[in-house]
Amino acid sequence: MSTRLTYWGAAGYEVVSPTHRILLDPFLSQNPLAPVSPDDVEVPDLILVSHAAPDHYGDAAAIAKRTGAPVVCDTAVRAMLLDEGVSEDQVTATTWGIVVEIAGLRVRPVECHHWSNGRLSDGRQVVGNPIAFIVEVEPGVRIYHYGDTCIFDMRLIGELYRPTVGLLGCTVPKELLSWVSGPGLFVSGEMDADEAARAAEMLGLELAVACHYLTLDEEVERFLELVPKYDTTGRRAAVAPAVGETLVVEAGGKHSIEGGPG
Amino acid sequence: MSTRLTYWGAAGYEVVSPTHRILLDPFLSQNPLAPVSPDDVEVPDLILVSHAAPDHYGDAAAIAKRTGAPVVCDTAVRAMLLDEGVSEDQVTATTWGIVVEIAGLRVRPVECHHWSNGRLSDGRQVVGNPIAFIVEVEPGVRIYHYGDTCIFDMRLIGELYRPTVGLLGCTVPKELLSWVSGPGLFVSGEMDADEAARAAEMLGLELAVACHYLTLDEEVERFLELVPKYDTTGRRAAVAPAVGETLVVEAGGKHSIEGGPG
Amino acid sequence: MSTRLTYWGAAGYEVVSPTHRILLDPFLSQNPLAPVSPDDVEVPDLILVSHAAPDHYGDAAAIAKRTGAPVVCDTAVRAMLLDEGVSEDQVTATTWGIVVEIAGLRVRPVECHHWSNGRLSDGRQVVGNPIAFIVEVEPGVRIYHYGDTCIFDMRLIGELYRPTVGLLGCTVPKELLSWVSGPGLFVSGEMDADEAARAAEMLGLELAVACHYLTLDEEVERFLELVPKYDTTGRRAAVAPAVGETLVVEAGGKHSIEGGPG
Repeated sequence: MSTRLTYWGAAGYEVVSPTHRILLDPFLSQNPLAPVSPDDVEVPDLILVSHAAPDHYGDAAAIAKRTGAPVVCDTAVRAMLLDEGVSEDQVTATTWGIVVEIAGLRVRPVECHHWSNGRLSDGRQVVGNPIAFIVEVEPGVRIYHYGDTCIFDMRLIGELYRPTVGLLGCTVPKELLSWVSGPGLFVSGEMDADEAARAAEMLGLELAVACHYLTLDEEVERFLELVPKYDTTGRRAAVAPAVGETLVVEAGGKHSIEGGPG
Repeated sequence: MSTRLTYWGAAGYEVVSPTHRILLDPFLSQNPLAPVSPDDVEVPDLILVSHAAPDHYGDAAAIAKRTGAPVVCDTAVRAMLLDEGVSEDQVTATTWGIVVEIAGLRVRPVECHHWSNGRLSDGRQVVGNPIAFIVEVEPGVRIYHYGDTCIFDMRLIGELYRPTVGLLGCTVPKELLSWVSGPGLFVSGEMDADEAARAAEMLGLELAVACHYLTLDEEVERFLELVPKYDTTGRRAAVAPAVGETLVVEAGGKHSIEGGPG
Repeated sequence: MSTRLTYWGAAGYEVVSPTHRILLDPFLSQNPLAPVSPDDVEVPDLILVSHAAPDHYGDAAAIAKRTGAPVVCDTAVRAMLLDEGVSEDQVTATTWGIVVEIAGLRVRPVECHHWSNGRLSDGRQVVGNPIAFIVEVEPGVRIYHYGDTCIFDMRLIGELYRPTVGLLGCTVPKELLSWVSGPGLFVSGEMDADEAARAAEMLGLELAVACHYLTLDEEVERFLELVPKYDTTGRRAAVAPAVGETLVVEAGGKHSIEGGPG
């Protein structure tokens, strides 16, 4: 048994477990490297959206409308989805701690120290509570999606929910920096390589997966180097799939990367 | 000397100390098991509202208007109260850390890792900062109300403010789940039994009180079993009053439960 | 080499390093003790605003408009600045973790456990994510501005970013309490003296600077007494400049206070 995580870039993944197809932060139409069009995404069992930022919210509304798939998210994302015409029956808003049983899965929202700030079509601001997710997609494969959190003491999350595979932002997608208005330059993401490598240790991961880029950069390389430095288990691996590649994981930590379709 | 906490269900309590009557998250008119009508509640000295969710905000506006009692809350709840016609002179908004001296009491707001998201009569969203409260209601009886927080490292709160009696959500009121729109099912509250029992230890409580239900369920039973498991003091008790019952507490940890009026 | 921090009251400072002039939470026109008028402030290289509260946001808009200086802030402050006519090209919104390189400096936003709640000229609420800042203003002088946070476990921030000088709220400006509507009295700021002294230890500061007052009060005195109590390094100093005074700091912890212009 194995689970396949295809990286779509930024914080977007298509996760195909032995039983389910799950989309995480599906950022495609505005993604210059998107390996698939939102129109061609296969019908998922579930869509998880961590917060309202455009590189995470992405094409959640369009995919939800076309496929009818249920969405679990925060209240800001819910307001945006409904505003874009997604049916109220498809969207469940939750927050930290409230586990949602849906599509035969248990979705656990955990603390994400970030913000969730969106805008409706009439210009009104909507604000929610950003979410990091933990989902056991097959027995022994518990995926943690960081949802754009900054570093904080995650040891309790590691101890309580024992995620095995962590998708951890460790840089910032350079291709999207032109979206940021104003002077100056973002020189890191919400976590940098060192912070993300420490997060991997606090969470007690088996496999630390670099996240929040479109093309591999030096911070991603640094993440791969630093994960072992903070590893007290001696068994933690680190990987950084290119956009379009598929990470195949099994219970017990075995994993491999398969090339993209191209 | 003793203090009486009558459980109204969800996170609602009427606390009667030797000197004060305090309402916490007074959820009554929409509460199918409410032991009292908001019209019949005795005039309190103080109303504390943790956040804007309907099962916590409850009947705060109606009770405040009828009785003239002051309210301490966050900015979202304040906006909603004023919107419902409560006088500005009655409502003080505070946030984490800012102790409010009011009605002869010191109200300490502490971190609550949740959200506070409400709506005004014109449909506008208001967002605040949810609050957990600590109030010393008689010497040696320091009540902690969790305000719907999820689990986090609460040891600093325990060390600094030494609450003795903790009202801790450990499940989700099944009777209110129909309020949640969308697919899927909430299978836990913001804390489950295990998390709440760990919170009791981190806070260093003498008495851990189950909270966030209308009828006792298996999670509440599990909370009662788990509190001793995490207790490093050997002196922690756990109780779970039924709605309408009154928990009587004294300094030093002595406590009993008295039946409801029926 | 040395850096000069002139205290403007509340959480406001003008920081003049060997290379830069930086304004922090410039609260002047509504500040009864302001040592300078916003019209007379020298052109800064950078303005940092922690959150939308009036005693922190202060005169940021007027100074930014007059001087053209860039501002780094959260999204609520950004919306307010733009609403007041500051050019979009001048304002960069960031959040926890995302380091901004600007004006030759690296501005590191770290967690601030507070709220950021403002209002636009049309009455609409804007909500953001409050920021505490760390900036290395000269080699070995890393200034932490607390941004109105309450106490929390700041050890990770101390370990990762090793601030040397910390501007720490430890009381509440009595002169501004009339701004707070409603019954009761704020008897502490977001941190009290004890909490701020513990924060100094968790952050591993060389120099703990009292903040969030206009006139020195008993809480400030208590802060000066308590900083050594929690100091495990044996090398931590504590100071409390009067409004208008200038704190001069050097790498290695050497510091002095110079009188105000009057």
